[in-house]
Amino acid sequence: MTKPLLQIALDSTDLATAVTVANNVESFVDVIEIGTILAFAEGMSAVNTLRKRHPEHIIVCDMKTTDGGAILAKMAFEAGADWITVSAAAHIATIEACKKVADDFNGEIQIELYGNWTLNDAQSWVDLGIKQAIYHRSRDAELAGVSWTPEDISRMRVLSEMGIEVSITGGIVPEDIHLFEGIKAKTFIAGRALANDTGKATAEALRTEINKYW
Amino acid sequence: MTKPLLQIALDSTDLATAVTVANNVESFVDVIEIGTILAFAEGMSAVNTLRKRHPEHIIVCDMKTTDGGAILAKMAFEAGADWITVSAAAHIATIEACKKVADDFNGEIQIELYGNWTLNDAQSWVDLGIKQAIYHRSRDAELAGVSWTPEDISRMRVLSEMGIEVSITGGIVPEDIHLFEGIKAKTFIAGRALANDTGKATAEALRTEINKYW
Repeated sequence: MTKPLLQIALDSTDLATAVTVANNVESFVDVIEIGTILAFAEGMSAVNTLRKRHPEHIIVCDMKTTDGGAILAKMAFEAGADWITVSAAAHIATIEACKKVADDFNGEIQIELYGNWTLNDAQSWVDLGIKQAIYHRSRDAELAGVSWTPEDISRMRVLSEMGIEVSITGGIVPEDIHLFEGIKAKTFIAGRALANDTGKATAEALRTEINKYW
Repeated sequence: MTKPLLQIALDSTDLATAVTVANNVESFVDVIEIGTILAFAEGMSAVNTLRKRHPEHIIVCDMKTTDGGAILAKMAFEAGADWITVSAAAHIATIEACKKVADDFNGEIQIELYGNWTLNDAQSWVDLGIKQAIYHRSRDAELAGVSWTPEDISRMRVLSEMGIEVSITGGIVPEDIHLFEGIKAKTFIAGRALANDTGKATAEALRTEINKYW
């Protein structure tokens, strides 16, 4: 597989801020994500705008699509998204509808792993031809100051073995990257860590670590 | 409990259409919902606009909030929503964060029942003081031409007994209303059935049925 990519999550509540952040980071990230907060704040114009301003980047629209999949997917792909997110809690018919639209646009679906999803669920996504999922560090772990747990790592491995590439997010720092060796990591996603004043240095440190293990 | 209300779900992909539909139906609905599709199409301006134009109606913002709950909730309540939706798949910490914001605004949270939610999950929502959930007719049932199933009705009853009022949606027609007798139904939600040319007559027929059973 290709090396894991770096992704900026834009979650401002206004487009101007998002445009500024994207402008500042575009030279050192591969993927620009219109986060759910930004998408609900500004609507599809956020996707249109960032697609136009960053024609060479991968654009993600993080809708966590739960229902009305065909319409939401079409809207986001037409606005310029390359990838869209779909909730693990969506009915399989919704996930399938999103995949069909993605295929029409040569786009991709990423499953957002929330709720009580099972490995049977994951197999049904794989059976639909879905190749990506997004793994979030447990909030309880994060709040308790615990880093990524063995259970997180083992679940990511199982998903990798099933053929799913995982985008990994949740306070990602360069010192964590080694934990994910051997996992099919599609992207590492960060927000403030890449958007702040030390963002470029952080990106370089992340890539140094990535190059050690992939 | 009060009688079930009538709710219009606005799911157009443009604000002008939504404004027109809301204008046409406001006299015979109690609740105006900015559907997820409209919210992602137009952003919070859709909530602002409909709140301003319909100051006396209950306004729902259907975000199916899955993460970043505090920020999404604040955004929607500030834009004028009375109720917001939160996904059953969200981490309990997210649901709790949304509830706290709702309390600050004298607003309410509705849990969108998607994915593998359990009665233990439902109890944890009740423990947080959440009093509403939205029950969707099974899509498989709908596609197979099957009406509401005994399992649907019995799950709604259990939720009622736990203290949750259910908004009910999925091809609702007046002939179905009797099925829900004895359930704490908060609203019946419809889209095209209320928005089309016979919407007013449909609303009257729904209310006639509602008055028989509540």
